[in-house]
Amino acid sequence: DFLNALHEVIPAFGASTDDLERCRLHGMVECGDRHKHIYQRAMLVAEQVKVSKGSPLVTCLLEGYRGSGKTALAATIGIDSDFAYVKIISAETMIGLHESTKCNQIIKVFEDAYKSPLSVIVLDDIERLLEYVPIGPRFSNLISQTLLVLLKKLPPKGKKLMVIGTTSEVDFLDSIGFCNNFSITYNVPTLSTNDAKKVLEQLNVFADDDIDSAAEALDNMPIKKLYMLIEMAAQGAQGGSAEAIYAGKEKINISHFFDCLGDVVRLI
Amino acid sequence: DFLNALHEVIPAFGASTDDLERCRLHGMVECGDRHKHIYQRAMLVAEQVKVSKGSPLVTCLLEGYRGSGKTALAATIGIDSDFAYVKIISAETMIGLHESTKCNQIIKVFEDAYKSPLSVIVLDDIERLLEYVPIGPRFSNLISQTLLVLLKKLPPKGKKLMVIGTTSEVDFLDSIGFCNNFSITYNVPTLSTNDAKKVLEQLNVFADDDIDSAAEALDNMPIKKLYMLIEMAAQGAQGGSAEAIYAGKEKINISHFFDCLGDVVRLI
Amino acid sequence: DFLNALHEVIPAFGASTDDLERCRLHGMVECGDRHKHIYQRAMLVAEQVKVSKGSPLVTCLLEGYRGSGKTALAATIGIDSDFAYVKIISAETMIGLHESTKCNQIIKVFEDAYKSPLSVIVLDDIERLLEYVPIGPRFSNLISQTLLVLLKKLPPKGKKLMVIGTTSEVDFLDSIGFCNNFSITYNVPTLSTNDAKKVLEQLNVFADDDIDSAAEALDNMPIKKLYMLIEMAAQGAQGGSAEAIYAGKEKINISHFFDCLGDVVRLI
Amino acid sequence: DFLNALHEVIPAFGASTDDLERCRLHGMVECGDRHKHIYQRAMLVAEQVKVSKGSPLVTCLLEGYRGSGKTALAATIGIDSDFAYVKIISAETMIGLHESTKCNQIIKVFEDAYKSPLSVIVLDDIERLLEYVPIGPRFSNLISQTLLVLLKKLPPKGKKLMVIGTTSEVDFLDSIGFCNNFSITYNVPTLSTNDAKKVLEQLNVFADDDIDSAAEALDNMPIKKLYMLIEMAAQGAQGGSAEAIYAGKEKINISHFFDCLGDVVRLI
Amino acid sequence: DFLNALHEVIPAFGASTDDLERCRLHGMVECGDRHKHIYQRAMLVAEQVKVSKGSPLVTCLLEGYRGSGKTALAATIGIDSDFAYVKIISAETMIGLHESTKCNQIIKVFEDAYKSPLSVIVLDDIERLLEYVPIGPRFSNLISQTLLVLLKKLPPKGKKLMVIGTTSEVDFLDSIGFCNNFSITYNVPTLSTNDAKKVLEQLNVFADDDIDSAAEALDNMPIKKLYMLIEMAAQGAQGGSAEAIYAGKEKINISHFFDCLGDVVRLI
Amino acid sequence: DFLNALHEVIPAFGASTDDLERCRLHGMVECGDRHKHIYQRAMLVAEQVKVSKGSPLVTCLLEGYRGSGKTALAATIGIDSDFAYVKIISAETMIGLHESTKCNQIIKVFEDAYKSPLSVIVLDDIERLLEYVPIGPRFSNLISQTLLVLLKKLPPKGKKLMVIGTTSEVDFLDSIGFCNNFSITYNVPTLSTNDAKKVLEQLNVFADDDIDSAAEALDNMPIKKLYMLIEMAAQGAQGGSAEAIYAGKEKINISHFFDCLGDVVRLI
Ligand SMILES: Nc1ncnc2c1ncn2[C@@H]1O[C@H](COP(=O)(O)OP(=O)(O)OP(=O)(O)O)[C@@H](O)[C@H]1O
Ligand SMILES: Nc1ncnc2c1ncn2[C@@H]1O[C@H](COP(=O)(O)OP(=O)(O)OP(=O)(O)O)[C@@H](O)[C@H]1O
Ligand SMILES: Nc1ncnc2c1ncn2[C@@H]1O[C@H](COP(=O)(O)OP(=O)(O)OP(=O)(O)O)[C@@H](O)[C@H]1O
Ligand SMILES: Nc1ncnc2c1ncn2[C@@H]1O[C@H](COP(=O)(O)OP(=O)(O)OP(=O)(O)O)[C@@H](O)[C@H]1O
Ligand SMILES: Nc1ncnc2c1ncn2[C@@H]1O[C@H](COP(=O)(O)OP(=O)(O)OP(=O)(O)O)[C@@H](O)[C@H]1O
Ligand SMILES: Nc1ncnc2c1ncn2[C@@H]1O[C@H](COP(=O)(O)OP(=O)(O)OP(=O)(O)O)[C@@H](O)[C@H]1O
Ligand SMILES: [Mg+2]
Ligand SMILES: [Mg+2]
Ligand SMILES: [Mg+2]
Ligand SMILES: [Mg+2]
Ligand SMILES: [Mg+2]
Ligand SMILES: [Mg+2]
Repeated sequence: DFLNALHEVIPAFGASTDDLERCRLHGMVECGDRHKHIYQRAMLVAEQVKVSKGSPLVTCLLEGYRGSGKTALAATIGIDSDFAYVKIISAETMIGLHESTKCNQIIKVFEDAYKSPLSVIVLDDIERLLEYVPIGPRFSNLISQTLLVLLKKLPPKGKKLMVIGTTSEVDFLDSIGFCNNFSITYNVPTLSTNDAKKVLEQLNVFADDDIDSAAEALDNMPIKKLYMLIEMAAQGAQGGSAEAIYAGKEKINISHFFDCLGDVVRLI
Repeated sequence: DFLNALHEVIPAFGASTDDLERCRLHGMVECGDRHKHIYQRAMLVAEQVKVSKGSPLVTCLLEGYRGSGKTALAATIGIDSDFAYVKIISAETMIGLHESTKCNQIIKVFEDAYKSPLSVIVLDDIERLLEYVPIGPRFSNLISQTLLVLLKKLPPKGKKLMVIGTTSEVDFLDSIGFCNNFSITYNVPTLSTNDAKKVLEQLNVFADDDIDSAAEALDNMPIKKLYMLIEMAAQGAQGGSAEAIYAGKEKINISHFFDCLGDVVRLI
Repeated sequence: DFLNALHEVIPAFGASTDDLERCRLHGMVECGDRHKHIYQRAMLVAEQVKVSKGSPLVTCLLEGYRGSGKTALAATIGIDSDFAYVKIISAETMIGLHESTKCNQIIKVFEDAYKSPLSVIVLDDIERLLEYVPIGPRFSNLISQTLLVLLKKLPPKGKKLMVIGTTSEVDFLDSIGFCNNFSITYNVPTLSTNDAKKVLEQLNVFADDDIDSAAEALDNMPIKKLYMLIEMAAQGAQGGSAEAIYAGKEKINISHFFDCLGDVVRLI
Repeated sequence: DFLNALHEVIPAFGASTDDLERCRLHGMVECGDRHKHIYQRAMLVAEQVKVSKGSPLVTCLLEGYRGSGKTALAATIGIDSDFAYVKIISAETMIGLHESTKCNQIIKVFEDAYKSPLSVIVLDDIERLLEYVPIGPRFSNLISQTLLVLLKKLPPKGKKLMVIGTTSEVDFLDSIGFCNNFSITYNVPTLSTNDAKKVLEQLNVFADDDIDSAAEALDNMPIKKLYMLIEMAAQGAQGGSAEAIYAGKEKINISHFFDCLGDVVRLI
Repeated sequence: DFLNALHEVIPAFGASTDDLERCRLHGMVECGDRHKHIYQRAMLVAEQVKVSKGSPLVTCLLEGYRGSGKTALAATIGIDSDFAYVKIISAETMIGLHESTKCNQIIKVFEDAYKSPLSVIVLDDIERLLEYVPIGPRFSNLISQTLLVLLKKLPPKGKKLMVIGTTSEVDFLDSIGFCNNFSITYNVPTLSTNDAKKVLEQLNVFADDDIDSAAEALDNMPIKKLYMLIEMAAQGAQGGSAEAIYAGKEKINISHFFDCLGDVVRLI
Repeated sequence: DFLNALHEVIPAFGASTDDLERCRLHGMVECGDRHKHIYQRAMLVAEQVKVSKGSPLVTCLLEGYRGSGKTALAATIGIDSDFAYVKIISAETMIGLHESTKCNQIIKVFEDAYKSPLSVIVLDDIERLLEYVPIGPRFSNLISQTLLVLLKKLPPKGKKLMVIGTTSEVDFLDSIGFCNNFSITYNVPTLSTNDAKKVLEQLNVFADDDIDSAAEALDNMPIKKLYMLIEMAAQGAQGGSAEAIYAGKEKINISHFFDCLGDVVRLI
């Protein structure tokens, strides 16, 4: 099945997948059919890149609500692609740098990829790479132009490249003509009640009787917020009960869970 | 009770809590249930950070009206957390510096925190760190991007970090997508009549008969303004009476108090 | 009375009050009750700073129409406060400098003040310090942020500071959130007919019969314009009569006075 | 016919047409009458440049929807012109450079052209050369002014120059007065059903029975997207069928083709 | 009378009035009562500066339509003031300089003036000094702030200064709060029919019969345009007649004059 | 007549009229009465500059639709003026330079002119000199201020200067107050049917029977576009017929001419 598929692929030697592994701290649980579908299609595209003669560059955008699991998914595709060169470009390694320095680092990653026969580059959180803020809006046009060209530029003869972008600001990217530059775009959804239930079952922190009502309350929740909520609730109203719950000895108190839900959801 | 709870926690050795202590010059009096609730939940979150395995970073925003006591509260949580590394990042230590220098100082604090197993960082007055003015609006996008990434970046393996932000410009922070980057947000309220009465009783500068009408007049007042007002009123109409009042030998003249209230409230 | 009060206070040794004296070239005549009230309250605040333990910083804004006497009043309060360190920060000593240089000079004055147990700083013409023009509007955000922090930053333990700001652009200051940073704000008014009459009597340049009609015409006039007008009128229609008038030998011709009034008022 | 015409012209020695060849990775298939007409007229203009005495400079703009084949067409005209100096100016060779450096490189190409008796310069993706983003909009005025002058400046006595520009942002170029600076403008269209059918027949990847319905579905499609789609569909629903299809041994499964079409079209 | 008054004053030794003389190339003819009134009042103000004790700085703005004679008038007042230091600050001597260099040159002139007991400074064409263009609008805030402070800053003890500004963009100056900084403002008018007649009589280039109809046609004309027109008309329809007309041997052909008027007025 | 007048004037020795000659590659054919009138008036103005005593500077603006012949006309006036110093300032010789460098080159030309007793300077394509784009709009205020001052600054004693500007963006120039700085402005029109007929007769490329209908179709055409059209049409539908037509052996095929007209006009 989907989850197993994710793990039975052995990472290609040479690819530094450590950075990518850090993107899925909680491991990868099954998040429902829609997540699974995106994973499968993206893996087919990776195969297409390998065999194609006329299209040495394919670019794919994963967009969706904050915390819906885009980065974890992109990292997983990168790791599972089995390509020789797999690299994530993230704002986290370029904090506080000048935009031209960032540009050069981005260009460097592409140039390295051009040297490898088969490469995957994850452009994580593109709005952050572009230093985007909605007021103005402001963003770095230098980086933006650089990416626009890189997303269109063919690798040298004999080299193949797959680029996976992630963003939670797809409207902004659209407004600056970015989306058109991706060959394909997938929307990574928040969890439906069904998806949430599947996740909760795998996590095993609720009593069987509570799972349905908890999942109901989690409808439309991004997976990131689900994890935060579970951890708060596991703490218990007086603190101290988390260890027992993670050890499977206790279950989360469902009414305290709803309290925490109110706290977290209220202000967002 | 709440007030005692605040003081019986012994500050962690190694944490330089001097800067934090300067944030509560008047000590910490009880300000009512809503303030207390925020304190308690924040302390639970601090515990969660300690025990969690999957969430090494939790971020919490205290927002509220100017002078409502956000900084004092954040400092108190930081001190009481008992974490090894506790640090406040404030515009006051970076006056007149270039935005890139400020950035580097901010990054430095986070990097120091990443070396400690358990850390608390207070981002005080985020709008001031961002050099925000409402006209334009203008603000430093360099610092803004830096903080956006730092608020999302996980500390290295085995390290845990709690970030507490304060702001009186939550609408602005929202408009640049900052609030979404905090795991939880609490609103620190101005004083209700009841809260004000509780504070006045602790301060003991009014005659018993005057406390109710004074508290009534202070409804919806931020605590900072309350202190300013008390000091003006203590001075007396002709000056010179403050010492006797603070020594408990005299009480504030209630009608002079209302005069001062008019003076202070009129123009704001 | 008010006027005498102004002059019987001997300036503190150590305080360089020369700069402040230049701000009241015409001396200080009585300008009516509203001016007097502001003076008295400000002197009480100065006393409050001296005796307070919990509020080592008080900030006070004098705002009002151009030429209404704000700078002269702020200078007088500074001089009469009898504090050890008294200093005016004015755009006049920083003409043509780069905003960062101005910033440093401003910071320097505050740092000097932090070394003195009791200090007064006059921030004169804040809009000019901020390099404000209404079109745009434009202003220096660097200086603006610097002042915003300095107006909130507590002096070191054991030091006390009073800051008096002046501005004729209070709406602008409000719009960038400056006013909220002052503990108290006073509006320095233009002259009423009564105020004007009091001033004219002290100046003694009109015939007794003309004072009333002259004062009537001067209703709502800022004191600066009143002085300009008197000097123009004293010149006489053909020039040359000023000396005799100032010597008290002649009086101003009331109809020529009205001519000048028309000339000056017409275009403003 | 058109296609043959394209290939029977031998490239001029001295012209570095390698860069131009890379612009038509898939070779040149026939795309219908409208594409053919533009090719023919442009070739006539090239001849006009050769024989004209009074007009040593002719400029021609190819505008049209993203991926409609503009660059491939411009490259083909350049190659087929048989001029001594043929050069493409593209953002791809200037990634991350400062606008003034880009300017100098652009100027250099024109100066080189001025030394040759007959030259063609392709200004590819002018909006990218101008670092255009629609938000603002922003673009480099330095490069924009440079191009505006170069598009009008006559080559030195005895030299002739043809400039072919391409753009998918003709409205923007119009709004900055660029289009008026081109002698002629042609719109390169997306494929009609008829055009698409012609292309599919040449590619030979569909069963004869499926071509009509496939072509129908491809109405109004830019050729770039058509190629992407074919490659995705050739992969097959389970992957692995591409090789057999390109080798002519199998045909694309028409219903899988429609699946892919939905995937690609849905989000754009 | 007015005209004679202008010339019988001998220029002060030490004052470099050469620059000022260049501002009235055509000499000074009488332009009617309104011009005369401004001249007389400005001369009285100059006297006021001399005798005043309390107002060592008076500032006066001459505003009016382009070419109405402001600069010539300001120069004349400066020359006739008989002050020790007389200087014009004009954009013409600072062409192409950086705004900070301009600033320094302006400051230098004021500092020189502060050394002289009695000074006049003409700030000519303030909008040009401020590098103003109506689109945006744009202007140098550096120079603007410099002038705003200089127009308010008192000269040192014992020194007196009169500043005369000229501008044809009084609305702009008003919008940036400049006008309020001048003690007095005068509007220099275009010529009325009567004024124009007076000027034409002095110039003596029309036949007596034609003066009235010519003057009629010149109603509302700035004097600068009048001079341009006379010179064009004097040329004659075929050219060559100017010398005879200036020598008084011939008169301007009135119908050719109206032709020229049409040409000049039509397009403005 | 007009055309002859243009050519019988011998260029002044010392004037480098080569640059100017390059502006009229096609020679100067007669373009109708309105063009002629402008030429004649401008020549009279040149004479006026020579003989005037009071107006050592006259400035004249030629504005009109793109390609209407402004530059060719300005160059012709410059050449025919017979002045000692004749120079064209054009963006073509300053491509890619920084605005301050451009400024200096412009200033240099004026300073050279100030050394010659009689000078003509052509400011060609002022909007291009100002680096104007309509979006924003943006333009160089540095160059704009420089020109604004130079257009008003009198040459030194004894020197005379005529400045001829050209522009196809008169509305923009007006909006930044440029037009007011020119003494006179002329609109250079596109061709009327009559004008076009006159031009076609001189060019002699149509059969006598076709001239009228061709001229009719060319109504309102700028002369630049007319030349482009003639050259396209002369090529013939199959190419190769141009030489015979220019040699007078064949005539342009009128229906092919209308084809080309459709091609050229359609998209503009
Ligand atoms: N399938 C999954 N199984 C388990 N954990 C997951 C899964 N997908 C995501 N997560 C976890 O959820 C959190 C959010 O995921 P991720 O960072 O990928 O979301 P995102 O959409 O990239 O968020 P953002 O919009 O903030 O960039 C992470 O801690 C990640 O490890
Ligand atoms: N619980 C409390 N007990 C006593 N004093 C308090 C308390 N809370 C706040 N104060 C005092 O009130 C004043 C304002 O508090 P604080 O600076 O924390 O408010 P704030 O909301 O951060 O204000 P600002 O919006 O200006 O940053 C300070 O002098 C602080 O010492
Ligand atoms: N009480 C007073 N007695 C005599 N002169 C006064 C008095 N107050 C102000 N003046 C004089 O009036 C003039 C204007 O006063 P001042 O500069 O203080 O006004 P301001 O409100 O600061 O003006 P601005 O808005 O321009 O800064 C000065 O010359 C000052 O000396
Ligand atoms: N006539 C053709 N025959 C075969 N392939 C073609 C033809 N025209 C274009 N292509 C191919 O289609 C793809 C898109 O063409 P091209 O890059 O020229 O389009 P474009 O309009 O320049 O796109 P963009 O708007 O992205 O610049 C390229 O891979 C190109 O090789
Ligand atoms: N009273 C006068 N007698 C004779 N000539 C005059 C007189 N006033 C002005 N002029 C002439 O008219 C022309 C325009 O005058 P001036 O330059 O002073 O006008 P301006 O209002 O300053 O114009 P601008 O608005 O362009 O700065 C000049 O040539 C000047 O010599
Ligand atoms: N009277 C004329 N006789 C012959 N050719 C002319 C004539 N006037 C202009 N031309 C030619 O027409 C073309 C356009 O003329 P010119 O460059 O002067 O126009 P313009 O109005 O300056 O154009 P632009 O607006 O592009 O600057 C040039 O090739 C020029 O040589
Ligand atoms: Mg992510
Ligand atoms: Mg605070
Ligand atoms: Mg003042
Ligand atoms: Mg292209
Ligand atoms: Mg002038
Ligand atoms: Mg031209």
